[in-house]
Amino acid sequence: MIELAENRYGKSRIRLMKVTRHAHGQTYTHDLREWTVQVLLKGDFETAHLEGDNSKILPTDTMKNTVYSLARTSKAIAMEDYAKELVDFLLTRNPQVSSASVRVESTMWKRLTVDGEPHPSAFMRGSGELQTTSVERAQAGSFHILSGLDNLVLLKTANSGFEGYIKDSLTTLPETKDRLFGTAVTADWCYTSPNLDFDAVRTEIREAMLRTFANHNSKSVQQTLYAMAESALEAVPQIDEIEITMPNKHCLLVDLSRFNQDNPNEIFVPTDEPHGYIEARVRRRS
Amino acid sequence: MIELAENRYGKSRIRLMKVTRHAHGQTYTHDLREWTVQVLLKGDFETAHLEGDNSKILPTDTMKNTVYSLARTSKAIAMEDYAKELVDFLLTRNPQVSSASVRVESTMWKRLTVDGEPHPSAFMRGSGELQTTSVERAQAGSFHILSGLDNLVLLKTANSGFEGYIKDSLTTLPETKDRLFGTAVTADWCYTSPNLDFDAVRTEIREAMLRTFANHNSKSVQQTLYAMAESALEAVPQIDEIEITMPNKHCLLVDLSRFNQDNPNEIFVPTDEPHGYIEARVRRRS
Amino acid sequence: MIELAENRYGKSRIRLMKVTRHAHGQTYTHDLREWTVQVLLKGDFETAHLEGDNSKILPTDTMKNTVYSLARTSKAIAMEDYAKELVDFLLTRNPQVSSASVRVESTMWKRLTVDGEPHPSAFMRGSGELQTTSVERAQAGSFHILSGLDNLVLLKTANSGFEGYIKDSLTTLPETKDRLFGTAVTADWCYTSPNLDFDAVRTEIREAMLRTFANHNSKSVQQTLYAMAESALEAVPQIDEIEITMPNKHCLLVDLSRFNQDNPNEIFVPTDEPHGYIEARVRRRS
Amino acid sequence: MIELAENRYGKSRIRLMKVTRHAHGQTYTHDLREWTVQVLLKGDFETAHLEGDNSKILPTDTMKNTVYSLARTSKAIAMEDYAKELVDFLLTRNPQVSSASVRVESTMWKRLTVDGEPHPSAFMRGSGELQTTSVERAQAGSFHILSGLDNLVLLKTANSGFEGYIKDSLTTLPETKDRLFGTAVTADWCYTSPNLDFDAVRTEIREAMLRTFANHNSKSVQQTLYAMAESALEAVPQIDEIEITMPNKHCLLVDLSRFNQDNPNEIFVPTDEPHGYIEARVRRRS
Repeated sequence: MIELAENRYGKSRIRLMKVTRHAHGQTYTHDLREWTVQVLLKGDFETAHLEGDNSKILPTDTMKNTVYSLARTSKAIAMEDYAKELVDFLLTRNPQVSSASVRVESTMWKRLTVDGEPHPSAFMRGSGELQTTSVERAQAGSFHILSGLDNLVLLKTANSGFEGYIKDSLTTLPETKDRLFGTAVTADWCYTSPNLDFDAVRTEIREAMLRTFANHNSKSVQQTLYAMAESALEAVPQIDEIEITMPNKHCLLVDLSRFNQDNPNEIFVPTDEPHGYIEARVRRRS
Repeated sequence: MIELAENRYGKSRIRLMKVTRHAHGQTYTHDLREWTVQVLLKGDFETAHLEGDNSKILPTDTMKNTVYSLARTSKAIAMEDYAKELVDFLLTRNPQVSSASVRVESTMWKRLTVDGEPHPSAFMRGSGELQTTSVERAQAGSFHILSGLDNLVLLKTANSGFEGYIKDSLTTLPETKDRLFGTAVTADWCYTSPNLDFDAVRTEIREAMLRTFANHNSKSVQQTLYAMAESALEAVPQIDEIEITMPNKHCLLVDLSRFNQDNPNEIFVPTDEPHGYIEARVRRRS
Repeated sequence: MIELAENRYGKSRIRLMKVTRHAHGQTYTHDLREWTVQVLLKGDFETAHLEGDNSKILPTDTMKNTVYSLARTSKAIAMEDYAKELVDFLLTRNPQVSSASVRVESTMWKRLTVDGEPHPSAFMRGSGELQTTSVERAQAGSFHILSGLDNLVLLKTANSGFEGYIKDSLTTLPETKDRLFGTAVTADWCYTSPNLDFDAVRTEIREAMLRTFANHNSKSVQQTLYAMAESALEAVPQIDEIEITMPNKHCLLVDLSRFNQDNPNEIFVPTDEPHGYIEARVRRRS
Repeated sequence: MIELAENRYGKSRIRLMKVTRHAHGQTYTHDLREWTVQVLLKGDFETAHLEGDNSKILPTDTMKNTVYSLARTSKAIAMEDYAKELVDFLLTRNPQVSSASVRVESTMWKRLTVDGEPHPSAFMRGSGELQTTSVERAQAGSFHILSGLDNLVLLKTANSGFEGYIKDSLTTLPETKDRLFGTAVTADWCYTSPNLDFDAVRTEIREAMLRTFANHNSKSVQQTLYAMAESALEAVPQIDEIEITMPNKHCLLVDLSRFNQDNPNEIFVPTDEPHGYIEARVRRRS
C-alpha cells in the first residue's frame, strides 16, 4: 500500500514592484520596493492527489492575484509585516489549509544622487544582495518568522590566515598568515516576537556582521563566521538564533616565480569552483 | 551566553571528468562520466569556531584532492558506489568527524552516432537533466542513500485539464479541459539497501515516471505527481519513499480574438515566472 | 553639433510555443515547436530621437502581437520561412521602415518514447543547443538569410593533440599528443537562395560538422574548426560561407603524482574559465 | 575551392584580482581591482588552419600567463592603460600577429564603511554594472580604444510617457502619460586620443548620462537615449561618438479593477521577457 506522507503547493516567483508616492507641497518623493514572493500551503489535499478532486484547491493563479490585491491595500512598510498579512488572509479564507507560509525576497534599489541631491524619482539597481523573510503560521498557531539576507558578497585583503590544520598524505595546501578572504554571506535569524520594527532590527544585525567581518583577525572562515553570528546576537536582543553560510570563494595567488617575478600577495585569480562551504547555527544558551 | 548549535563544512563544486578506456583488439571504446561532487563533514569543530584552533580541521582543499585521488583508484561505475567509498575513506582517516556526506550530480553526455554507428570517442552534451545522489553515514552508522534526478523538463500537449477548483473574489483563472502541462521534475528516493545495482534501479524509476507522465489523464499537477510517485514505488521494490517536486511551468494561451482570430490551443506563450510549485512525499505504508 | 548616426529598435525575447495537431482516424500526433523571436527595425526615426515625435513608431508591443498573430496564420514549418513572412508583413505595413530583421532561436524538444513507441503528445526538453536564423530584408531588397546553431557542446577523448607551438619565456603549457577536446560550437552560414528546404539543408550541415569533429585527427582547434567548415561547404552547395566559433573548454589533467599515483589520461577537471576562443570564416573561393 | 576568409583566436575569461597595498606610517590602505580579460589575435595563421602547423601559434595558455605577469609589472591604474601595455607586449613579441585586441571588464567593489569610517581592507561587491574597454592596435598602427559600461540598471518612476505612436489592427498597448521606465544601459564611446585620464573621463560620461536619465521628460526610450548620448558628448570633448543600447524592461501595471480596486500607478509586475530593444549611435558632426 502506498500513501501520501506530506504535500505542499503554491506559487513561486511572483514579482511585485510597489511605488509609493509622497507629495510635499510643490515637490514629491517616490519610494520603490521590488519584492519576489512565494506562497506555499499545507493542508487537507489528499483527495486532489489520489482522486483528482480539486474542490479544496485554491488555484496558484489566485494566490498570485492575492499578492497584488493585498499589496494595494496593505500599509506595511517592512516585508515581514506584509507577509504576516498575506498569511492571515490566506488562512482566514481557506479553512482546508492547515498552515501557510510566505517568503519574500527584496531586491536592492538605490536612489540616484544627481548634482549632489537625492533624486525624487530615479533609482539605480544596487548589488545582488537580497533581503529575505519566511513567515509561517498554522491555523490557530503563532507566527514563525525567519528573516535574513542572501548573496552579501564580501572580501577582505588583510587579517586573514589559515594555519595549524591537519596535514596528511593528500595535503597540498600551503599554510598562510596572509590570504584574501572572499565570501557570499547567507544568514537567517529567528525573531523572539512577531511584532517588531523589522527594518530597524535588520539594519542592526547586518551592520554588526559587516563590522565583525571587516575587523576580525581571522584564523579560519569558521572562526569569523562564529564571531559574526555572536556579534549579531549581542547587538540585537530581539533574535535568539542565527544561521550563517559562508562559502570560501578562493582567490588563488598566482605563481609568478616561473617567470622570475615575485608576487607579494598582489596578483590573484578569483575562482568560482570549487569553493569551500561553511555553515553554522549559533544561538543564545537557554 | 551564546553557543554553537550546529555546524557543517566541506567543499562544493568539485568537478571531475573520468574517461575509461577499453581496448578490444584493434579497436577501442571510451566511456565518459562528468560528476560534480560536494563533500560535507560534521563533527567536533567547536574549538575551530570559538578559538580559531584548526588542529581538527581537514582543509577543504584536501577534500578536493581526495575526490580526485579516489576517483583514480575506485572501480565504482555507479556514483552511489563511489560516494560510499568516499564517505568511508573520510570517516576512517578522520576520527574527529562524526558524520560525512557526499553529494554527486552527474551531467548527461551522449555518445555521438556517426554514419549510423556509435562513435568510440566522440560525445555530445545531453539535456540539462542531472542524475543525483546524496550518501551520508555517521561513524559506526549505516549508509543513508538518497538518489534522484533534477531538472527533467517535460511537456504534454494532451490529457491535461484543471477544473472544479475553489472560486472566490480573487479568481480570474478560467477552467479548462485541455491545457499544456509543462514541468521540470526533481525527484529523490530512498533505497532500502545500500548494496544495489543503482544504475539499473535508477533507469527503472525514471522510466516509470516518464511513462506515467505521458499516459496519465491529468486533472491537476498534484494528481499526476502522485501517480508518478506511485508508479515508481510499484515498479521498484528497492525504494520505499519518493519525494517529487513539479513546478507548473505555465504555457499561456494567447488571446487572438482581439485580432479576430481563433486560437484552438495552438499558439502559447511559455513563461518562467511566476510558476506553480507542487511537491509531495509518497511512501509505502508500513 | 551632434547627430544621430545609426539607430535600430524592436522587441527581444518574444517566446512562442506552437502546437500542431494532426488527426489520423482514431489516433493523433502533436508536433511541438518553441521559438524565441527578436524583431528589429531600421528606418526614418530621427524625429522620435530628437523631438519625441512617435508618429512613425510602431510600438514594440505591436511587434509582439504580430509575432503571435502571424504564427497562427502561417503555414511555415521551417523557422526561416516564418521569419521571411514576418519581415514581409512588417515592411509592407510600415513604409517608414527601411529594413526589418527577424531572428529566431529554436529550443530542442524530443518526443518521448514510451514502451518502445513514440508518444503522440509527450515531450522532453533536449540539450541546450539552439537552432538559429537571422533573416533581413530592405524595402525593395532581397532576403539575406544567416542560419546557424549555437551551444552545440561536444567533447572528444581521442585523436586530439597540441604540439609544435611557440615557446617563449612565458610558456608553461606542456605539449601533448593526447588531450581531451571539449567545445561549444556556434556556427552561422549564408544561403545562396532564399527558397530552400531549410530544415533538410540544416540537418546535412550539422551532420557534416559532427562527423568531421568526431573523426578528425586534430592538431589544434583551428585545424578541426577549418575541417568542419570545409566539410559543411562540401556537403551542401546551397551555402557559400560559414563562420564557426569554437571555444576550447579545457579539461585539465589532474596531477596525481603528488599522491604517488599515475594518471594515464583518465582523471580530468573540466573548467569554464578561462577558455580558449577560436573563430574563423570559411568560404567558397569565387 | 574553399578558403579561409578571416580568423581570430585568443583567450577569454582570464580573471585577475589585483591588490595594491599602501602604507602610511602606522596605518595602511588597500585598493582592490577585479578585471576579466580577453585577448584576441589576428594574423598569419593560415597554415595552422589548413595544415595543422602550429609553429606560428602563441598558445592561449601563454596569453593567460602574460596577463598575470604583466599585471605584476604594470603601473597602470586605468584598465585602458593596462590594455594598451598588453597589446604592445603581444605585438612586439609576435611579428606573425597583424593586430591584437584586449577587452577588459571591471567588476564593481566598494570599500566598506565601518563605524562611519572607510575601512582600509574590507570590501563589498557593488552592483552588477561592469566598466569595459576594448583596445585594439595593428602592427605599426595606432590604438583604437572603445570604452564603455554594461548592465547599468536604472528605473524612473516619473516623467515618462508614451503616446502618439502608430495604431493599427494589431495594436493593444494603451497610451500613457505616466509609466515606469526601467532599463539596463550598455554604452560604448570612442576616445579621440589614446592618452587620457581615462578614469576621470569615464566618471564624467557616466554622470552626464545618469543626470539626463533622471531629469529627462521622456516621451520615448529613443528620445531619452538620444538625450543621454548628447549630454555625454557635450560633457566630454575627449569622445566623438557614443553608442547606447537601452532595453525597455517593462513594468506592467496590474489590473486590479477585476477585484474592485483602483491602481493609481502603484502596483506593477516587473518582467524580463519580452523586452523592448533600442539602440543608437550618436556622434559629433564633422
